[in-house]
Amino acid sequence: MISSETGSVLVLGGARSGKSTFAEALVTASGLAMHYVATGRAWDGEMTSRIAEHRDRRGGEWQTLEEPLALVDGLKSIDTPDRVILVDCLTLWVTNLMMEERDMAAEFAQLAGHMLTARAKLIFVSNEVGLGIVPDNRMARDFRDHAGRLHQIVAAKAAEVYFIAAGLPLKMKG
Amino acid sequence: MISSETGSVLVLGGARSGKSTFAEALVTASGLAMHYVATGRAWDGEMTSRIAEHRDRRGGEWQTLEEPLALVDGLKSIDTPDRVILVDCLTLWVTNLMMEERDMAAEFAQLAGHMLTARAKLIFVSNEVGLGIVPDNRMARDFRDHAGRLHQIVAAKAAEVYFIAAGLPLKMKG
Amino acid sequence: MISSETGSVLVLGGARSGKSTFAEALVTASGLAMHYVATGRAWDGEMTSRIAEHRDRRGGEWQTLEEPLALVDGLKSIDTPDRVILVDCLTLWVTNLMMEERDMAAEFAQLAGHMLTARAKLIFVSNEVGLGIVPDNRMARDFRDHAGRLHQIVAAKAAEVYFIAAGLPLKMKG
Repeated sequence: MISSETGSVLVLGGARSGKSTFAEALVTASGLAMHYVATGRAWDGEMTSRIAEHRDRRGGEWQTLEEPLALVDGLKSIDTPDRVILVDCLTLWVTNLMMEERDMAAEFAQLAGHMLTARAKLIFVSNEVGLGIVPDNRMARDFRDHAGRLHQIVAAKAAEVYFIAAGLPLKMKG
Repeated sequence: MISSETGSVLVLGGARSGKSTFAEALVTASGLAMHYVATGRAWDGEMTSRIAEHRDRRGGEWQTLEEPLALVDGLKSIDTPDRVILVDCLTLWVTNLMMEERDMAAEFAQLAGHMLTARAKLIFVSNEVGLGIVPDNRMARDFRDHAGRLHQIVAAKAAEVYFIAAGLPLKMKG
Repeated sequence: MISSETGSVLVLGGARSGKSTFAEALVTASGLAMHYVATGRAWDGEMTSRIAEHRDRRGGEWQTLEEPLALVDGLKSIDTPDRVILVDCLTLWVTNLMMEERDMAAEFAQLAGHMLTARAKLIFVSNEVGLGIVPDNRMARDFRDHAGRLHQIVAAKAAEVYFIAAGLPLKMKG
């Protein structure tokens, strides 16, 4: 079973757009063994409570893997065709990579390469962050550049791409 | 006449996207008695001139009600099936509720409840604010979280949802 | 040959959404002589490298014209039906006009007027900047108001309008 059959999905949306809920519904509907790859780190109380809220909503049937940096290694470690893996979210992964001063292009290429051969069904959630005013500080501009490039790369390899607003999906590909 | 017949509408869009103009065209086309519920407060000269600009565009056939906080009470006071009510906009209502430290979830639930039984046709305008970089300050983050949650709630109850960009509508529901 | 036949196009999208790449593909597919009107000024190293990156991607078959302010004069100087002109981007033009304290409404009306009679095929690229939190400072708010108004004006005259996210086009008009 190759990627063109299993079909990776990118779910893109704004803050509190309902993108995680939509992605979780895709996972549940797949009938496959459900895995959750969390890229977020609990930096502070705010992030801790967001992570807990997501965990509570998903319930106990999910297997959770925390991979703030080694996302592709994490995906490879559970890459079997009976699994669906929800990655939530790509923008937090970008943040973590930037903080560690990783080679972004190399990391993105590695993910794109994995998407081509993945046997598990992959569902990526990410925040669209490029539709506001240009940020004042360079790091924020770099962040949205990296996020935008990654979204293009993942969307190009994905079988389906959705843009979510107000909890409603708009199918952009597939 | 119940909500499923009259059909509430959510018109979502960015700043200067043409969302109010689009919503006003829906109101005019309805043939119903036209009511405008303004949630904005004239804090400063900039807001005063925005309000005046909207008022001038609408013309004299509209009845205007100012409800910065008691939105649902205002809607109930004119809830008859011969009326169309344009609420402009939900994000300003969220701002006002936050400033008064109201229970946001309770307020949103009250609006959702009213949408289920409303006899007037309701058209809500709101700003999508969640598609830029994560704001530095906590209040701005809370604001966009509240706005995002409210959009999901209203969209779920609405018969039609439009996303407006460059003055053009994209139908997301209905 | 009039505008309704040649058909102007507006390509709107966020930062690093792939909008320039999409617009360049439209240009190449047209089979017309390819012209690039750059509105950006190389203020700093960051902007210089962005401009160079765009230039390298386009290759040597393009004629380039730099018009940070006199956009319409530039368009008129090469307005023949055998040409396709890519304007990248409208938001930088807005920035330059604001810095020179030009009459924005008059400038926008002049562009709209030219679109009605243009003989060359015009393809405009622009950044959607109105979908984030309201900016703190007045100049940024004015900027997104001007950009939003210009997008509405150009979209109304364009034959086709696309919204780009993650490199994928969503047709909003045409």
